[in-house]
Amino acid sequence: MSDRDTRHKASMEKLKARVDQKVANATEQRGMLLINTGNGKGKTTAAWGTVTRALGYGYKVGVVQFIKGLWECGERNRLEADPHLSVAIMATGFTWDTQNREADTAACLEVWQEAQKMLADPEMYLVVLDELTYMLKFGYLDIATVKQALLDRPQEQTVIITGRNAHRELVAMADTVTDMQEVRHAFNNGLQARRGIDF
Amino acid sequence: MSDRDTRHKASMEKLKARVDQKVANATEQRGMLLINTGNGKGKTTAAWGTVTRALGYGYKVGVVQFIKGLWECGERNRLEADPHLSVAIMATGFTWDTQNREADTAACLEVWQEAQKMLADPEMYLVVLDELTYMLKFGYLDIATVKQALLDRPQEQTVIITGRNAHRELVAMADTVTDMQEVRHAFNNGLQARRGIDF
Repeated sequence: MSDRDTRHKASMEKLKARVDQKVANATEQRGMLLINTGNGKGKTTAAWGTVTRALGYGYKVGVVQFIKGLWECGERNRLEADPHLSVAIMATGFTWDTQNREADTAACLEVWQEAQKMLADPEMYLVVLDELTYMLKFGYLDIATVKQALLDRPQEQTVIITGRNAHRELVAMADTVTDMQEVRHAFNNGLQARRGIDF
Repeated sequence: MSDRDTRHKASMEKLKARVDQKVANATEQRGMLLINTGNGKGKTTAAWGTVTRALGYGYKVGVVQFIKGLWECGERNRLEADPHLSVAIMATGFTWDTQNREADTAACLEVWQEAQKMLADPEMYLVVLDELTYMLKFGYLDIATVKQALLDRPQEQTVIITGRNAHRELVAMADTVTDMQEVRHAFNNGLQARRGIDF
């Protein structure tokens, strides 16, 4: 075996030992709270990836879209025939297109009722609250209500919350938090959003 | 209108103007190179989300999995019947389970042939090179070969590369780069990886 091969083997063995140790330490099994936040691309997309994954095992999944309501959406095209998927959409488009605080609050509270039903349903293995963070930021929903619904949810249910500037109390209670940071974004260099890639 | 409503409307109008300006500036249309990197959760998951999205419009998609080859995978369960999706998998499991540099290199070069075919196929709207970064890091593939294949690809083809420690030359040529940073990960707090969520 060459020196390089020997070094490679040793380094891989060390890595494997570290991973094995982590796996051995991970003994708790329950639903989790995941937050995808940050100013970069991938927060909602990763949530849809997880939806596809959970559906792949036949689990029941609920998705609540708080902002991108009226956008065409490839994931919905692809998955909406799946009988295990329920999608609830806030009855307004991008909130800065309406600029009406009262109407947006009402629309938010209406779709939040759907979210609460999903969060209370023990058959829902995964619930995605897409772009929820903005509802808290704009004051359409209050943090205490959201926290209570999350705390009361069935133990086996995983919840994914997406959006920039996640509320610090949500971050504090989450099991996994990923901060998706923009290093570079094509949109800022004159590239158009692309069908099937960006939406 | 209350003061709060007026302030909200003004702030939303400013936001809308900023977004509208960006949309007006974005005039170029072509396939893109996206990189999902960083030590956090969501790199591969976001790529699968984009695959689901592209399939939702009926586009042809290729996925090459360079590391997670032998893992069960919910996305594959859910999507593999789709005639528009081709998946090529490196014929070895997690590379630190094999610890054999020569065998891993051979397996990598074999599946790279499949990747090259996809990157040369003008009908492939989206190609995902999942965990490619490690192949470069471990020296199984060289950066010049990968760069050339990316440069030669059809203009309309989008490519997503995932994995930690993306090579700086890949980062330099990418249109969009997201650094997915771990703020907290359930696995490090004793929570087991969960079927349908983590794999």
